[in-house]
Amino acid sequence: MSSTPMSTADVDVVVIGAGVSGLTAARRLVAAGLEVAVLEARPEVGGRTMLSRIRGITIDRGGQFLCASMHPLLALLDELGMATEPNQSLRDPQARDVWFRDGERSTYVGDLPPLTQQATAALLAAMARLQEMSDTIDLENPWDSPDAVELDETTLGAWLTANVREDEAIYLLTALFSLACVAAPQQLSLLFALWFIKGAGGIEGMGGDVDMTVVGGAGSIGLRLAAELGDRVHRGQPVAAVAHTADGVEVTTRSGAEFRSRRAIFAVPPSDARAIAFHPHLPSARTALQSQWQQHAVLKFHACYDTPFWREDGLNGAVLSDIPVAPIVFDGSPADGSAGILLGFLGLHGPRLFGGNDPALIDDEQRLKSEIVAALTTYFGDRAAEPTEVVVHNWAVEPYISGVLGATPPGLLSAYGDALRTPVGPLHWAGTETALRWSGWISGAVEAGERAAHEVAAVLRPG
Amino acid sequence: MSSTPMSTADVDVVVIGAGVSGLTAARRLVAAGLEVAVLEARPEVGGRTMLSRIRGITIDRGGQFLCASMHPLLALLDELGMATEPNQSLRDPQARDVWFRDGERSTYVGDLPPLTQQATAALLAAMARLQEMSDTIDLENPWDSPDAVELDETTLGAWLTANVREDEAIYLLTALFSLACVAAPQQLSLLFALWFIKGAGGIEGMGGDVDMTVVGGAGSIGLRLAAELGDRVHRGQPVAAVAHTADGVEVTTRSGAEFRSRRAIFAVPPSDARAIAFHPHLPSARTALQSQWQQHAVLKFHACYDTPFWREDGLNGAVLSDIPVAPIVFDGSPADGSAGILLGFLGLHGPRLFGGNDPALIDDEQRLKSEIVAALTTYFGDRAAEPTEVVVHNWAVEPYISGVLGATPPGLLSAYGDALRTPVGPLHWAGTETALRWSGWISGAVEAGERAAHEVAAVLRPG
Repeated sequence: MSSTPMSTADVDVVVIGAGVSGLTAARRLVAAGLEVAVLEARPEVGGRTMLSRIRGITIDRGGQFLCASMHPLLALLDELGMATEPNQSLRDPQARDVWFRDGERSTYVGDLPPLTQQATAALLAAMARLQEMSDTIDLENPWDSPDAVELDETTLGAWLTANVREDEAIYLLTALFSLACVAAPQQLSLLFALWFIKGAGGIEGMGGDVDMTVVGGAGSIGLRLAAELGDRVHRGQPVAAVAHTADGVEVTTRSGAEFRSRRAIFAVPPSDARAIAFHPHLPSARTALQSQWQQHAVLKFHACYDTPFWREDGLNGAVLSDIPVAPIVFDGSPADGSAGILLGFLGLHGPRLFGGNDPALIDDEQRLKSEIVAALTTYFGDRAAEPTEVVVHNWAVEPYISGVLGATPPGLLSAYGDALRTPVGPLHWAGTETALRWSGWISGAVEAGERAAHEVAAVLRPG
Repeated sequence: MSSTPMSTADVDVVVIGAGVSGLTAARRLVAAGLEVAVLEARPEVGGRTMLSRIRGITIDRGGQFLCASMHPLLALLDELGMATEPNQSLRDPQARDVWFRDGERSTYVGDLPPLTQQATAALLAAMARLQEMSDTIDLENPWDSPDAVELDETTLGAWLTANVREDEAIYLLTALFSLACVAAPQQLSLLFALWFIKGAGGIEGMGGDVDMTVVGGAGSIGLRLAAELGDRVHRGQPVAAVAHTADGVEVTTRSGAEFRSRRAIFAVPPSDARAIAFHPHLPSARTALQSQWQQHAVLKFHACYDTPFWREDGLNGAVLSDIPVAPIVFDGSPADGSAGILLGFLGLHGPRLFGGNDPALIDDEQRLKSEIVAALTTYFGDRAAEPTEVVVHNWAVEPYISGVLGATPPGLLSAYGDALRTPVGPLHWAGTETALRWSGWISGAVEAGERAAHEVAAVLRPG
């Protein structure tokens, strides 16, 4: 019943997934003198980064922000001759953030919105306690941390409810994790949350320090890498089956193309590897990891204006709000100020910051856009009411991408975390989910791609 | 790049998945005079039920047990002229269970193993409290229950740790949920656990009342249904793509076969629908549900002996133990006593009852079997050391089945539970995961199949 093979290729390494992780791995392998084929299910490369244009201006529909502690990404950008620039919302230290809560709008300068003294104290105490707990986590093998099982038995949400008395403090911590992990605190294993903090270099570094973007868009990283790799990258080739022995791998795509290699690197989230039939089947722990892995999704919007008019009002374009269609907003204007762009993130359903939206609203693009514009008008005044264009990218419904950020629910990391990176014979695992630092982010993708390429090169080009 | 269509069929309803749920749905639709095609990814029908043989004796490698509160299943068995028989471990009320803890073996008669008075009191108090909380749950729409969000923010494991002081009581409750939901308490949203209790008719009914098996094996239900449906069932046809409009559905399988229908019923777990490309894409809430859904897996073993020798020692073959390769054992002998079979369940990794096993052991079949036999020998003496045959079925690594029981982690049921059953245009959702009662069990599969068939028939055959 299977299709006739369309083509057969023999290479040293097949890389599955042409996101930043897979492309980085491929680049390292090519540099090591190995023959590589990269298979991408989608018509385009870049994975969860994606370049787009509004009225001639380049924007990132996907991952975008970075910071000084993201060494693997910064080093790659350097190699590629690509530059970074400050997050536009941070360019003027005197400009004010908008804080919108319970129908009240206020503005402030600095790191923290105006809180009561009690809330500030509660926030700082909770952050200190989370940092202290995070310090006990084993970054490389979080499942070996003291109390790993107990920490993995509960959620960050339950911990916040039990340990933080002030709602505003909980709210800000929810915002922090909603941005960093896309998931709501009640979806995150406490062990995972503490491990993520450790990988981000500390809870202080998770939030305000994410202060840069990539000149030309983070989506151009994948395009640059793919251009270098040329016809080694095969687009529109979802992998159907992978046969593997100790000596080699045979990958068959859904269109019937076959690739034989000595090693394979899977640069996809564990949950996306589930769609592939493995012969022989993967070890039980790896299969369980894939089966129970969760990816969380988010929507990103860009609203375009002729000018960054909010700057005239002393505002920097940043918003933290409880209006669920636009809870988090930044200035995404081009650096030359030739247009004004407000970008923001929103979640789907659920009770928390990133999840207060009616699912039906999410799927009604026109209504969603007009509610986003209404929220922006609440934050920035009437001039926000007439954008020249609004685009919304819904990462919840991408074919071949089961969500933008992985975050483990209780019980998963302690039980099967070890299967995240452990190779299975000739099969190696990349993807940002396998990174130790900034897992889920672009820098994690680079770290993971390089680590997997290193593993493979050490076997195929020993010494 | 796509394959040439191999065949095209036009029917009223395509049913995807030939487990008990899909086959039940198809049977109801055929009875309503509708034309049906059932597409099954695997070479055989039955889904998570599966008939097999040891030395000529029929055994169930998959789902097997049932009880008096499973009305949809009992009614179906009745219609099919199939009979039930008592769980062999319950046939002699004077025979003793084995209780093995901390290296100590003891035996007891009755519902509860020998506990300290404090542990018994703690167990009964915890059960009463869980029952009381469960009484507040809205069975049909658990996300509308009072405190749904708070209950969905934490895990049953965290609740047990915080509310039950006696380890032995926690242990028995862990055993109860490990059997009923396959997941460890720390993997279960508390809201889900309470909702499951409600659907099982109360916490008393979850455990000891599951007291029957199907004569000829539960796996014969699917075989009987498929035999009735004849060539309407298409095996080895994994679905690749589903195009849908308000008026109809076009289903393409991976081999290129096409089926056009007015409605489709998906009788697969939400996590398995993820492998299908939908055009247009599914609503965001449904996609998030599929993306975040978790299935949990278990292994089942049968050890065969010439006679049920343990009965001579006054034992009923039932064991509750902390040896992780054989924590739960029952007498699975044929009713005529012509052989002795001990069957049991074990989990993969993790700290709890069903999860204490080293992943490497799980994947080493010979070593696993010998450790199982060693445990049985500990429970039943030297005669258990020489089985005529041992078979182990690992449900963690089945192609096309992402685990045997679904159980939602924190934050999922309250946010996206509504998408479990809500049709999307002409697409309807069956599978035991969508049942209100005994979700995850065979009876839930029947309930869900009938409900989905009813939805579809009401549209296609109004009045």
